[in-house]
Amino acid sequence: MGKQYVYLFSEGNADMRELLGGKGANLAEMTKIGLPVPPGFTVSTEACREYLRRDQQIWDELRDETIDALRNLEETTGKKFGDRKNPLLVSVRSGSVFSMPGMMDTVLNLGLNDETVQGLAAASGSDRFAFDCYRRFIQMFSDVVLKVDHYLFDRALEEKKKSLGVKDDTGLDATALQEIIEKYLKIVSEKTKEPFPQDPLEQLILSIRAVFDSWNNQRAVVYRQIHKLPDHLGTAVNVQSMVFGNLGDDSGTGVAFTRNPSDGTKELYGEFLINAQGEDVVAGTRTPLPIAKMNEYMPDVYKQFVELCELLENHYQDIQDIEFTVERGTLYLLQTRNGKRTAASAVKIAVNMTEEGILTREDALRRVDPSQLDQLLHRRIDPDVKLDPIAKGLPASPGAASGQLVFTADEAERLSGDGVKVVLVRPETTPDDIHGIVAAQGILTSRGGMTSHAAVVARGMGKPCVSGSEDIRIDLNAKTMTVDDKVFNVGDIISIDGSNGEVYAGTVPMIDPELSGEFSMLLEWADEVRQLGVRANADTPEDARKAREFGAAGIGLCRTEHMFMSQDRLPVVQAMILAKDHEERQQALDKLLPMQQDDFTEIFRAMEDLPVTIRLLDPPLHEFLPNLEDLLVDITLLRERGNDAKELRQKEELLKQVRSLHEFNPMLGHRGCRLGIVTPEIYKMQALAIFKAAATLAKEGKTVIPEVMIPLVGHETELKLMRELVLEAAAEVKAESGQNIEFKVGTMIELPRACVTADEIAAHADFFSFGTNDLTQTTFGFSRDDAEGKFLLEYLQQKVLPENPFAVLDRDGVGSLVKTAVEKGRGTKPELKLGICGEHGGDPSSIEFCHQIGLNYVSCSPYRVPVARLAAAHAQLNHTSQGKD
Amino acid sequence: MGKQYVYLFSEGNADMRELLGGKGANLAEMTKIGLPVPPGFTVSTEACREYLRRDQQIWDELRDETIDALRNLEETTGKKFGDRKNPLLVSVRSGSVFSMPGMMDTVLNLGLNDETVQGLAAASGSDRFAFDCYRRFIQMFSDVVLKVDHYLFDRALEEKKKSLGVKDDTGLDATALQEIIEKYLKIVSEKTKEPFPQDPLEQLILSIRAVFDSWNNQRAVVYRQIHKLPDHLGTAVNVQSMVFGNLGDDSGTGVAFTRNPSDGTKELYGEFLINAQGEDVVAGTRTPLPIAKMNEYMPDVYKQFVELCELLENHYQDIQDIEFTVERGTLYLLQTRNGKRTAASAVKIAVNMTEEGILTREDALRRVDPSQLDQLLHRRIDPDVKLDPIAKGLPASPGAASGQLVFTADEAERLSGDGVKVVLVRPETTPDDIHGIVAAQGILTSRGGMTSHAAVVARGMGKPCVSGSEDIRIDLNAKTMTVDDKVFNVGDIISIDGSNGEVYAGTVPMIDPELSGEFSMLLEWADEVRQLGVRANADTPEDARKAREFGAAGIGLCRTEHMFMSQDRLPVVQAMILAKDHEERQQALDKLLPMQQDDFTEIFRAMEDLPVTIRLLDPPLHEFLPNLEDLLVDITLLRERGNDAKELRQKEELLKQVRSLHEFNPMLGHRGCRLGIVTPEIYKMQALAIFKAAATLAKEGKTVIPEVMIPLVGHETELKLMRELVLEAAAEVKAESGQNIEFKVGTMIELPRACVTADEIAAHADFFSFGTNDLTQTTFGFSRDDAEGKFLLEYLQQKVLPENPFAVLDRDGVGSLVKTAVEKGRGTKPELKLGICGEHGGDPSSIEFCHQIGLNYVSCSPYRVPVARLAAAHAQLNHTSQGKD
Repeated sequence: MGKQYVYLFSEGNADMRELLGGKGANLAEMTKIGLPVPPGFTVSTEACREYLRRDQQIWDELRDETIDALRNLEETTGKKFGDRKNPLLVSVRSGSVFSMPGMMDTVLNLGLNDETVQGLAAASGSDRFAFDCYRRFIQMFSDVVLKVDHYLFDRALEEKKKSLGVKDDTGLDATALQEIIEKYLKIVSEKTKEPFPQDPLEQLILSIRAVFDSWNNQRAVVYRQIHKLPDHLGTAVNVQSMVFGNLGDDSGTGVAFTRNPSDGTKELYGEFLINAQGEDVVAGTRTPLPIAKMNEYMPDVYKQFVELCELLENHYQDIQDIEFTVERGTLYLLQTRNGKRTAASAVKIAVNMTEEGILTREDALRRVDPSQLDQLLHRRIDPDVKLDPIAKGLPASPGAASGQLVFTADEAERLSGDGVKVVLVRPETTPDDIHGIVAAQGILTSRGGMTSHAAVVARGMGKPCVSGSEDIRIDLNAKTMTVDDKVFNVGDIISIDGSNGEVYAGTVPMIDPELSGEFSMLLEWADEVRQLGVRANADTPEDARKAREFGAAGIGLCRTEHMFMSQDRLPVVQAMILAKDHEERQQALDKLLPMQQDDFTEIFRAMEDLPVTIRLLDPPLHEFLPNLEDLLVDITLLRERGNDAKELRQKEELLKQVRSLHEFNPMLGHRGCRLGIVTPEIYKMQALAIFKAAATLAKEGKTVIPEVMIPLVGHETELKLMRELVLEAAAEVKAESGQNIEFKVGTMIELPRACVTADEIAAHADFFSFGTNDLTQTTFGFSRDDAEGKFLLEYLQQKVLPENPFAVLDRDGVGSLVKTAVEKGRGTKPELKLGICGEHGGDPSSIEFCHQIGLNYVSCSPYRVPVARLAAAHAQLNHTSQGKD
Repeated sequence: MGKQYVYLFSEGNADMRELLGGKGANLAEMTKIGLPVPPGFTVSTEACREYLRRDQQIWDELRDETIDALRNLEETTGKKFGDRKNPLLVSVRSGSVFSMPGMMDTVLNLGLNDETVQGLAAASGSDRFAFDCYRRFIQMFSDVVLKVDHYLFDRALEEKKKSLGVKDDTGLDATALQEIIEKYLKIVSEKTKEPFPQDPLEQLILSIRAVFDSWNNQRAVVYRQIHKLPDHLGTAVNVQSMVFGNLGDDSGTGVAFTRNPSDGTKELYGEFLINAQGEDVVAGTRTPLPIAKMNEYMPDVYKQFVELCELLENHYQDIQDIEFTVERGTLYLLQTRNGKRTAASAVKIAVNMTEEGILTREDALRRVDPSQLDQLLHRRIDPDVKLDPIAKGLPASPGAASGQLVFTADEAERLSGDGVKVVLVRPETTPDDIHGIVAAQGILTSRGGMTSHAAVVARGMGKPCVSGSEDIRIDLNAKTMTVDDKVFNVGDIISIDGSNGEVYAGTVPMIDPELSGEFSMLLEWADEVRQLGVRANADTPEDARKAREFGAAGIGLCRTEHMFMSQDRLPVVQAMILAKDHEERQQALDKLLPMQQDDFTEIFRAMEDLPVTIRLLDPPLHEFLPNLEDLLVDITLLRERGNDAKELRQKEELLKQVRSLHEFNPMLGHRGCRLGIVTPEIYKMQALAIFKAAATLAKEGKTVIPEVMIPLVGHETELKLMRELVLEAAAEVKAESGQNIEFKVGTMIELPRACVTADEIAAHADFFSFGTNDLTQTTFGFSRDDAEGKFLLEYLQQKVLPENPFAVLDRDGVGSLVKTAVEKGRGTKPELKLGICGEHGGDPSSIEFCHQIGLNYVSCSPYRVPVARLAAAHAQLNHTSQGKD
C-alpha cells in the first residue's frame, strides 16, 4: 500500500495542521466534533511536496485517491459529479500550514459545464441563478487556473451591460447571461488555444495543480522571504461540496457571534438573510435581519444553531464568529473562528468564561491582550461612530477632548474659570503656557514632536494632546487656525484624539474610562501571577492618587521640573537662574524650598507606606527662560522704532543671558546631574525639601519611603558626589527635626556609558532606574523630537527598523546595554534594586523583556498601570523568571 | 649581627631605590661611577619603617650606625662634626621611593652652633658669611624640626632691618646678624621651653626623627591618597656634607646642560659664577658668565667638568642638567638629572646619540614624547618671547596667525586678493563665510565651541582658529571689536594662537614648522618598529599631498561636506535641498556630480597607489541653509517697514523651509546615512562621482583604491541598503567606462548601538572606522559644542572626569564599546579592516589603546601624522600586539 495523500474531512483533526494545512485541519476538526460542515476532502501538503519533486506532474496514485474521495463525496451528498440532473459542485481552496495570502484564490462552483448548468437550473428552480453561477465559475477558473487575463472577462461583461443599457449585474437576465457565457467560452478558447474544459474531473485536477503551483508563485515566495517562513512545506488543497442559501424561503445565510463582541454580554449577536447567498449580505442590496428573528422564520434551525454555538464556544473556549448557510432547511457551518472583540468585551468575556468554568484564571489572563486595555483607560471617542478628521498630528498624549478654540494660555484660563471647556491651540508651548495647559481640556500644536514641551507636560497631566500637526496653520495675530481653506476662529468647537493624532471640527461623542468589576477582577488575578512590580510615573498628588487607584505599588518616577514651571514659581526660578552670584541664587532657592516641600508633602501623603522615587532637577536651565526667537523679534522692533531705550537695554541684557545658556544640542547639554555638579545648591535645596517633607509626615506618625534619584549619571564620580550631597541634607534635617527617615539614593541609568560602567556606578547606588527614553536617544543617536514624525516615519515605512524604538524597547541595541548594566550592577551589589521608568515601562513587549532580564519593577504613566499589571502577568506565564529573588 | 640600616653613598647604587629612596639611590649611583659628589650617607626606608613600628623611637643600634657613618664622613672630608676650627657641616633631606613633595623640606648647614660658627668664619674668611649661615640654619631647623612658627623669625628679621634702615638681607653686616641670631635663639627657647640644641649629633638625630615623622604628616598622607601610593613604604634620610662655592676666587657655582636644550646642538650650555653660592645665581643679583668662560678662570676644573659631562651623558644615556660647586679648586657635583628640552632638541639629541652609538634606535624612539612633536608641526609663536594675551578663547585649531582685523568674509577675500594678511573676526561663521576663511590667515570667533563651524572648517584646512572667546565683544554694525575698554577697528593688527586659545594685539614673532633631517630619520625608525598603520584625515588635494609628505599611508577620512560648502556650489546645494520634487532635486544633483567628480579625481591623483576612505555626506542639510535668526530679524524689519512685499513673501517662504528643516538636537537628527535612506539620490550622486573619478584615473593607468564609507550607521539594515546603492553605482560606472575598479564599502562606527550590534553590521562591511568624536558624544551624552569650555571645564577642574574625553579616549566607557565592536565585528568577519578616524587618532594615549585592541590603523589630521607614527611605535615598544595579523 502506498502513502495516503488525500484525507476526507472526517479522517482528520486539529492536530494534523502540518499535513492538512490550517484550513484543512480546521474543517476536519469541525467535522470531527459533529458540526454540520459541507463534506469534502483535503489533498495533503505531502502530496504537494511530492508533486513538486515529480516536476509538477500529477501521478496516477494521487489521481486515483482523489477520484475515490470524490466518490465518497457523491455518496455523502447524494449528488453526482457531472450529473446533468443534480450535479455535485465543489469549491477548491489552497491552505498551507501558516496563513499565506500570497497563494491561489478560491475557485467556487467547480463541476459546472454546459450540461450540469441545466441540472443546477432545475434543482434551484432558477435559470438565471444557474447561468450566473456558471458565468462566475468560468471567469474564476480561467483567471486562477488557466491564467487568462481577468480584464478580458470584465470588458466583455461591461460591453454586454452597455449594449443592454443596464447598470448592475442583477439587471442581466438568463438570456443575457447565456450570451455572456458564450462570449467567455470564446475568449478562453482564443487565449488558451483549447476549448474550456467541460470534464468536471479535468477541472478538478487542473485546479489542484494550480494550487500546488501557486506555492512557488512570486507573491508567495516574497511573502515567505519577508516573514521568514520555510520554502519546503508546500500547501494542501481543500475540496468541499457547495451549498446554496438562495434556493428558496427555506434557505438562507448569516453571520453571528456567540457573545456580544462590543460589550461582552452573553447573547447571540449577528444577522441573517432568507433566500440569499453570502455575497448578498456583503453587497448590502438587502437589509439583513437580527439573528434573533431567525427564530420566527425557521425555529428548528434556530434552535439547532443556538445549541451549536454553545458547543463551539465550549470546544474552542472562546467567543466564536460563525458563518452559516441554510440550504432547504438544512444548517451548514462554513466557518468558525475566534471572534474579534473590543477591549471591554475581551475583559468581560474572559472573566465570565472563567466564572462559567470554561476557562482557568491563567487562560483568562492570556485571553486579554494588554495593549488593548489602553482603550479603556482614557476618555475616548465612541468607536462606533465614523468620523472624518480635518487634520492629523502626532499622538502625543492619549485620550480625547472637545472644546472651544483658544490661542493663549490666559484666554484658556479665563474661559475655563467661567466653566467653558477649551482646547488650547499653539504653534508650540513654553513654560509660560503652563496655566493654560492646566485649564484646557486638551492641547493641539502645529510644531514639536513627542517630547516637545506640550507633549511631555500633557502626558504628565494625563491630558490629551496632538502635537506637531503640520496640516494646520496658526495665525496668532489674526487669532485664526486654517486647515486647507477652512478658517477656524476663537470660540469654534474642535475635538482632538490624542491616541491617534486626529483633529475634528465640532464635538464628537465620547466614552468615559471605566474600571468595571470584571476589569478589577482580571487585574487581581494578574497580581496573583506576576512577579514584576508595577509603579507609576507621577508628578502631582492627583496623579499619585490616580496611580494608587489603578493599583500602582509606588511611584517609580516623580519629576520635579514641572513643579518649577507653574506660573507663580517661574519668576523665582528665573531669578535663581539669572542670579549674578551665589548669594542671589541662594535667596531665590530659599524661596523655592518651602514650595517644593509642600509638593513633596502632598505626594508623600498620597503614597503613604509606598516608596516614592523623586528625580532631582533634570532639564537644562534655559528651558525656564523666555524664548530666544521672541526676544530677538522684540529687540529688532525696539531698535527699529527707537522709542524705548530702557526696555531695549533690558531685553538686550536678557537676550545675552539667554544666549549664554542657549545650547546647540540641549538633549546632550548642561542638564541632569551636571546641574547638580556645577550648581550643587539647587540639588541641595531639593534634597532638603524632600527630607523636610518626609519629617513633617513622620511627625504625624505616617510612614514615607523617599528614594532620591540622580539623573543622567555617566561616571561614577558624579553619583559619588551627588550621593554625598543628599546624605548631607538628610543629616541636616535629621539633626533639626529629630526624625529618622529611612531612604534610598540611586540613579537613572540612561546613558550608554552608565551601562558599560554600571559595576563602578553600583558602588554608590541603592537602586538603578533605567531611563530608556534617553537611553534610546543616545544609543541610536536619535533625537526623539527630530526623529518621530520625520525620518523615523520613513524608517518604519521602509522597514529599516522593525518598530519605533521609543514605543517598543529595542532589545538588540538598547536592551543589550540594559542587560549589561543589570549584570554589572548586580555583580557589584547583588541586592541592587532595578526598575525602568522610561515610557517603555507601559509597553507589553518591553515589560516582557524587563521580566526576562530580572528587573524588580516597571514604572509607567498612571493610566497604563493596569496594562502593565496584565503584561507583567503575561510575561510570568510565558517565561520563567531569571535573576529574581 | 643586626640588619644594616645606614648606607654610605659609596655602598649603594641606582638599583637600591626601594631601600635608599630615589634621591639616596641617585647620590649613591653618582658616587659609584666616580663622580665628585660631596660624601654622605643614607638612613634607609627600612629604618623608617622600624622607627614607626617602635612608636617613633630611635633605637640604640640605629644611633650607633649613624655615628659610625658620621665618623666615616669625617675621615673622608677631613673635617670634624662640632669642630670649632674646621667643622663638618651637613645637609639633611628626605627621600622616598616615589617623589613626594608632601614631606619634610631640606635642612642645610646642620652642625653649626655658637662655637662651630667661629670655625666656619675662619675657614671661609668671612664672619658675615658664617653668621648668615648660622642664622639660616637656626631658622630652617626650628621651622622643620622644632615646629616653631616660621613667621616669628621673619618678623624678627624684618624688625631688625627696619631699625637699621636697610632694605635687603645683604645690607645686614656681621654684627647685625649676630644680634639676629641672639634674638632667634631667644625665640626658640621661649617657644620650646628648651635652649636651641647646640650638640651637632643631637641636631642630626632630631632631624632624622623629623624626616621619619614627616612620612605621616597630613600633606604627605593626602598626597599619597590622591596619587594612590602605598602608605607602608616609609622614607629614607640623606645626610650629605656641605660644600661652599663662596670661599674665594678659586670657588664658584654653576648650572649646565651637556647639550643645547633648545636646539639639541652638541655643546656645553649653561652659566657659572665665581665666588658664589647657588642662591646667588637664582637671586639674579650678579650676572653669571657663559659656561665656556670657565675655561679662562679655572682651566683645570673646566677640563675636569667637560670630561664629567661626557661621562654622565654616557652613563645616563641622555642629556644631563648638572648643578655643580667648586670649593677652593675642587669640583663637586650636587645634582645631575635628565635635562628638560624642546621638541626640536629632543629629536636631534635622540638621533645624534644613536648615531654616536650611545642609544639604540628603540631607545631613541622612547626618548621622544610624541605629544611634544605637535610643537614642530605648526607655524607657531616663538616660545622664547614672553607675551601678554589680551583675551582667551578655545584652542580650536592649532597654529598661530597675525593679520589685519576684518569682520566680513568679503572683506577678507578682497584684502587677501590685494596681498594683505588678515584675521577674520566673527561672532560665529556659517557656510556663507567659507571664502573668507579660505582667504584669512586665521579665524577668531566670540561664540561656538570646538566643533563649531569655524573650528571644524579651520581644522580641516589646518588654519589657526580661536573660537568662543567670550572676552571679546564684536559690533558688526560699528565694525569694532572691544576687549575690556580697548576698541579695535578694521585694519588693526591682531595675532592669535590656536594652540592655546590666546589673542594678542599687534604682530608677534613666529617660527615656521620644519621636518628636519633628524626628524625624518626618527620617524623612519618609528615606521620600522610600529605595526599600527597611520593614515590622514584630508578633504582636499592640498591636504592629501601634505598628508603624504608627512608619511600617511592613505586617507582614513575624506569628508565630503566641505566640498558642498564652497561659495560656487552652495546655491546649487541649497537648490537641491529646497527642491519641490524629485525632478528638481535630480537637476541640482546633476550639476553637483561633475564638481564632486573633480574633487575626487584630484584627491585620488594625490594619493595614487594608496587607499582613500571617502565618507558620504554626513551633516544635517539645514547646515547648508541661511541662518534662522538672521531671517527672522530680516522678516521682522520687512514687516515693520512694509515697503517690500515681494521680498517679505520670499523670505517668509524661505523661513518656513528653514524652520521645517530646523532641529532641536541636530547632532542626533536627520544626518549621516539617514540622509541616504530618506534621499538616496544624494548618496547615489556621490557614489557615481567617486567611481567616475576612479575610472578616469584608471584609464590613465593609475591605481586608485577607493573605500566608500557610510556614516552614522546604527542598524545593520541601514548599511545593507546603502551598500546596495553603492554597488549599483559602481556597476553603472563599470558598464559605462569599462574600467574595473577595486573598492571597499564600510561604515563609521560612531553610535553605541553600532558597537553592541557590530556582529550584525559586520556582515555588510569590508571595514569599520571608529568615529570616536561622535561615539564619545553619544556614549557620555555630551554635546561637544555645549560641553567644552562650559560644564566640561568644571568637570575637569573638580576632577569629576580625569581627562577631557574628546582629547583622550575614555577607555572605560567609550573604549569598552569600541572593544566590544572589535570583538563582535571580527567574530563575524575575521578579515574586517579596523581603523579610527576621530580626533583621538592623533592622541598618543588613544593610539596606544588602538594598538592594544588590535586596530589596523589610526587616521588623524595631516599635521599629526608624525605624532601618530611615533606614538604607534611607542605603543609597539610598550605592548605586544593583540589580535593583529
